[in-house]
Amino acid sequence: MTIRIGAVGLGRLGHRHAWNLRFAIPGVELAALCDADAEKLHAVAREWGVARAYTDFAAMLDGGGLDAVAIVSPSHLHTAQIAAALERGLHVFSEKPLGTTVEECRIAEAAVEKHPDRVFMLGFMRRYDPSYAYARKMIGEGRIGRPFLFRGYCQDPESAIQGAIAYAGHSGGQFIDMAVHDIDLARWFMGSDPKSIFAIGGCYAHPEFAQYNDGDNVAALMHLKDDGMVFLFAGRTAPHGYNVETEIMGTQGILRIAAVPQKNLVEILDRHGVRKECSQNFLERFGDAYLAEMNEFVRCINEGCRPEVTVYDGTKCTEIAYKCKEAFETNELVRL
Amino acid sequence: MTIRIGAVGLGRLGHRHAWNLRFAIPGVELAALCDADAEKLHAVAREWGVARAYTDFAAMLDGGGLDAVAIVSPSHLHTAQIAAALERGLHVFSEKPLGTTVEECRIAEAAVEKHPDRVFMLGFMRRYDPSYAYARKMIGEGRIGRPFLFRGYCQDPESAIQGAIAYAGHSGGQFIDMAVHDIDLARWFMGSDPKSIFAIGGCYAHPEFAQYNDGDNVAALMHLKDDGMVFLFAGRTAPHGYNVETEIMGTQGILRIAAVPQKNLVEILDRHGVRKECSQNFLERFGDAYLAEMNEFVRCINEGCRPEVTVYDGTKCTEIAYKCKEAFETNELVRL
Amino acid sequence: MTIRIGAVGLGRLGHRHAWNLRFAIPGVELAALCDADAEKLHAVAREWGVARAYTDFAAMLDGGGLDAVAIVSPSHLHTAQIAAALERGLHVFSEKPLGTTVEECRIAEAAVEKHPDRVFMLGFMRRYDPSYAYARKMIGEGRIGRPFLFRGYCQDPESAIQGAIAYAGHSGGQFIDMAVHDIDLARWFMGSDPKSIFAIGGCYAHPEFAQYNDGDNVAALMHLKDDGMVFLFAGRTAPHGYNVETEIMGTQGILRIAAVPQKNLVEILDRHGVRKECSQNFLERFGDAYLAEMNEFVRCINEGCRPEVTVYDGTKCTEIAYKCKEAFETNELVRL
Amino acid sequence: MTIRIGAVGLGRLGHRHAWNLRFAIPGVELAALCDADAEKLHAVAREWGVARAYTDFAAMLDGGGLDAVAIVSPSHLHTAQIAAALERGLHVFSEKPLGTTVEECRIAEAAVEKHPDRVFMLGFMRRYDPSYAYARKMIGEGRIGRPFLFRGYCQDPESAIQGAIAYAGHSGGQFIDMAVHDIDLARWFMGSDPKSIFAIGGCYAHPEFAQYNDGDNVAALMHLKDDGMVFLFAGRTAPHGYNVETEIMGTQGILRIAAVPQKNLVEILDRHGVRKECSQNFLERFGDAYLAEMNEFVRCINEGCRPEVTVYDGTKCTEIAYKCKEAFETNELVRL
Repeated sequence: MTIRIGAVGLGRLGHRHAWNLRFAIPGVELAALCDADAEKLHAVAREWGVARAYTDFAAMLDGGGLDAVAIVSPSHLHTAQIAAALERGLHVFSEKPLGTTVEECRIAEAAVEKHPDRVFMLGFMRRYDPSYAYARKMIGEGRIGRPFLFRGYCQDPESAIQGAIAYAGHSGGQFIDMAVHDIDLARWFMGSDPKSIFAIGGCYAHPEFAQYNDGDNVAALMHLKDDGMVFLFAGRTAPHGYNVETEIMGTQGILRIAAVPQKNLVEILDRHGVRKECSQNFLERFGDAYLAEMNEFVRCINEGCRPEVTVYDGTKCTEIAYKCKEAFETNELVRL
Repeated sequence: MTIRIGAVGLGRLGHRHAWNLRFAIPGVELAALCDADAEKLHAVAREWGVARAYTDFAAMLDGGGLDAVAIVSPSHLHTAQIAAALERGLHVFSEKPLGTTVEECRIAEAAVEKHPDRVFMLGFMRRYDPSYAYARKMIGEGRIGRPFLFRGYCQDPESAIQGAIAYAGHSGGQFIDMAVHDIDLARWFMGSDPKSIFAIGGCYAHPEFAQYNDGDNVAALMHLKDDGMVFLFAGRTAPHGYNVETEIMGTQGILRIAAVPQKNLVEILDRHGVRKECSQNFLERFGDAYLAEMNEFVRCINEGCRPEVTVYDGTKCTEIAYKCKEAFETNELVRL
Repeated sequence: MTIRIGAVGLGRLGHRHAWNLRFAIPGVELAALCDADAEKLHAVAREWGVARAYTDFAAMLDGGGLDAVAIVSPSHLHTAQIAAALERGLHVFSEKPLGTTVEECRIAEAAVEKHPDRVFMLGFMRRYDPSYAYARKMIGEGRIGRPFLFRGYCQDPESAIQGAIAYAGHSGGQFIDMAVHDIDLARWFMGSDPKSIFAIGGCYAHPEFAQYNDGDNVAALMHLKDDGMVFLFAGRTAPHGYNVETEIMGTQGILRIAAVPQKNLVEILDRHGVRKECSQNFLERFGDAYLAEMNEFVRCINEGCRPEVTVYDGTKCTEIAYKCKEAFETNELVRL
Repeated sequence: MTIRIGAVGLGRLGHRHAWNLRFAIPGVELAALCDADAEKLHAVAREWGVARAYTDFAAMLDGGGLDAVAIVSPSHLHTAQIAAALERGLHVFSEKPLGTTVEECRIAEAAVEKHPDRVFMLGFMRRYDPSYAYARKMIGEGRIGRPFLFRGYCQDPESAIQGAIAYAGHSGGQFIDMAVHDIDLARWFMGSDPKSIFAIGGCYAHPEFAQYNDGDNVAALMHLKDDGMVFLFAGRTAPHGYNVETEIMGTQGILRIAAVPQKNLVEILDRHGVRKECSQNFLERFGDAYLAEMNEFVRCINEGCRPEVTVYDGTKCTEIAYKCKEAFETNELVRL
């Protein structure tokens, strides 16, 4: 049975998700597209041969004929769209963050609880990256003993800084915009939540972020309830590319994922030395993971099972990110 | 328009290709399956919901309703099946090698020449691996100057040795069975053919190969017509896994592909040191490439264009592999 | 002119320093040895042909005939021995830490100030490691822009845990015992001191450390006065060996020193994958640095110049280490 | 007892050896210097305070007062100087190659045989590099099973090409000048000598080498008497630096030494990607090995033992290098 999906949001990531649904995910039909930008919307719908196109999300739902929606709209619209789609009886895939405030997240929680037979999935795609999945499996098998330290780096390339500055007023800051992925990974790998958080950072290259109480590079150290440690770093000035690396230290082994960032398996020996080029953005690094998570969404619908990531994970990550932001802004230790 | 493809051969790689056609390649329908093993054939057909299943290739062609075939049968059947399918007006994808002798290859050449409007594609999948494709592009842009040395390693893991021994009588030897991929890459990267070949090797761990005039590890050094150098190594006793690595030296840069074999991006620090695990077989290492090449086959059919790899490349690679074998068996320098 | 040096302390590192002075540092004579363990002392003196051997430091000084001393005694003896040797007009090399309390450090400061014509050098040997020196030079040349994050890891191998447990009551804890090297590096690379510190950790594998208010693995996050960030991690349970790695992020480049720990240049491909073995202790990793720093001490004496590391650096590092310890013990943010 | 050594040759490597003897090797006195260039000779002697300086080797021997000589003169002088020094009863350290022809090597053999109580050591310094020594030890312990393939790369940087071109007429070609080190390593690691050799190459960037029947990059494939395989590559156009890497494949493990060339432990992340810089010449890469081999020479003299490398190894390496050259020049398979 083909699952008919409507996709909302044709930004960079939304376009990728929609493309995947149209061309690369077996068992689905991209039945409708929705974006506020009518020109872009109709160009894409025409090019891909998608019959139904809407500038209004409610209109898409009213149009009927859908089994599910994929929500990749601006973050502040997520929870309302999640609730509306579930109310119509649709399965829902939503990009992170669940909501831009904890209060919004509660709305999504309520909607999900009200429709327990519908699949709700949150787009923490890193969990579907083969390397992260492999690491999680190793940890689950006890192969590194007890994990006690999580280190997560997330860096955007300096080459993308103009976009980051333009978006700074709406991003919520780096902890909410970027570190939320690492917060999810930390909880996933460590199995514990923070009890205290210290966060620092600064505008080392781009003073523009200061007006939004943000830095261009920030860091947080969290003490977990089970005494575990989490160090998060998020930055916007990476000279070499898009860099997501993760380390989990355990009492019997240490795992590092992408600790030497690489674009592919090519090594270059030239006048710069021996080098590897890097991925330049999240679509390049996590292209496979975006496919894998959507295939998992489809599988859950078909088989009636639940995605591993719950709506509560979404709320918790948002909450922790806000606590990081508070610690950063107040220069105080924040306790949860 | 959906392309209806019949797949012949359900061995390890054939099963993967058929699975891809059934579940992962958009725009195609796996319309028929063919394998000599009736039990396996019908089990797979039933599980995947493929209506038509044949134990005889000619019967599958007679059954009609196909636009193309994917040939992943035993090597000695390739050329006859290629010719038969083209004769029926079908597009043909065939796994390497083109044929098991140069004479067989000529049959395929004649068939392809007779049907210039049909797409014929040979499965040198490495060309579709993102890293190899990236390296090829860099070389094409002149970024390493003039390439003058190609080094190609292809190693199967020791853990698979029993299968290799069982198959040794039919493989044609390592140069024909394994090195043919590297011969294709060497020609692709270097743009020149060998004028002389020296080949050596031995049975260092498994004397069983000697009765087939083969070694468990072999190597060849080729001088190219343009003076370039090619060093090939093929082995069956790799302790760490399936290892395909390639180096192209140029006058201004050197490229290495997968020079540090890795299974994924996970690095493990434990009592064995700092380590990466390795891929264990070609399906794991080249899974993406098998998908990409089949998508390219589909694209060529849809857009009426020609795959980069021609039938003549197939013949040439087979010819060179035989010359390597001759050099190995005679301990003499073989000139072409 | 040969410099006559008396060496005090024949523990593991003291023995190495004395050996270097006896056999590997040109231009010096190991003129006297001192250690409280008479048996060990005389055995070493006899084996190396060192005529004068003392179980008492004052007696060694009284014995005369020395130009300099190398102090590698237990940490709590450092400052008194420094002062006594300077008072006799000797040049002084002292291992870290300068003192075990800030008050002790002040004693050393006063002694050094009173003898401005004597060379005083503190053994922060990492500064003399070729890789650290190279990184420092690059930073000094502005090649990574403004440094804004320092990450320092220092891990002892689990295989050495029994010794660490036995010594736990005297070590002062991991921040003072181990992290002090990273504190020195952080100040050296970043050029700024901390204004606030948060420190956490736990006994994840070895509860024995809890009675000393220490953990088996600990971490600290510091905000520097110039807004820079410092993350320190010190651990005693590394499964793979002795691991010291350092990262300095700048606005235009990032440097990592020993980010993939390695024993030597040998890479091993075996059933564990592709791996490098690790150094197992500080003598193995920093053997060259111990030589280089002592050669620098000798050079300073001969040329009448000052070592880069001052006595004040020693005090400051001790002070910061104590603040880390305080933060760790109180679970509070400590401001300086 | 201090060993008094006279050093002949103040070229780049000769200067380093003499410096080591003067400043860095305990237990020796650099008692005399010899070089045909009087100006350079006296400048160095004055700067280092070496009392005796000669422009003539025989005069240095006549001057008396020496226990040993270190011969780092032009290659064609080696064997005569070896014989003359042994005749005077001196211990002899000679740089590679033993001689520039096999006939010359026989002269050295005879001289060494005539003075069995004198230490004769040939400067194959790579054997004293910690990583090569570690690899050799692992192989000796059987940890990689039976070694069956040796791959040796030796590349000089393109940045040094002008010197190489100027010296091309006297170098004897790359097999004799550069590959001789790898020939020694191959014999050392593999424990067998070649029975047939094929060698190729070309002038890919610098046609100047053609007039000397040499290439700027050359390669050889050797079949050993025990069926083992040796692949040697020597090049003069490395874009990244001085690159010596070695691989030994065994039936149970594979060792790679310096397979990712590196200058030190610093990794740089910048706009060129993630990179390591490389050593730029043999003095930088093998600085420690030059020290270690000279210390071994001194130890052998003091303890009356024999260096592992014998004069016969020197002859054999020269003989094999000439066979490579013959194969390269004739384009024929050369059998030994």
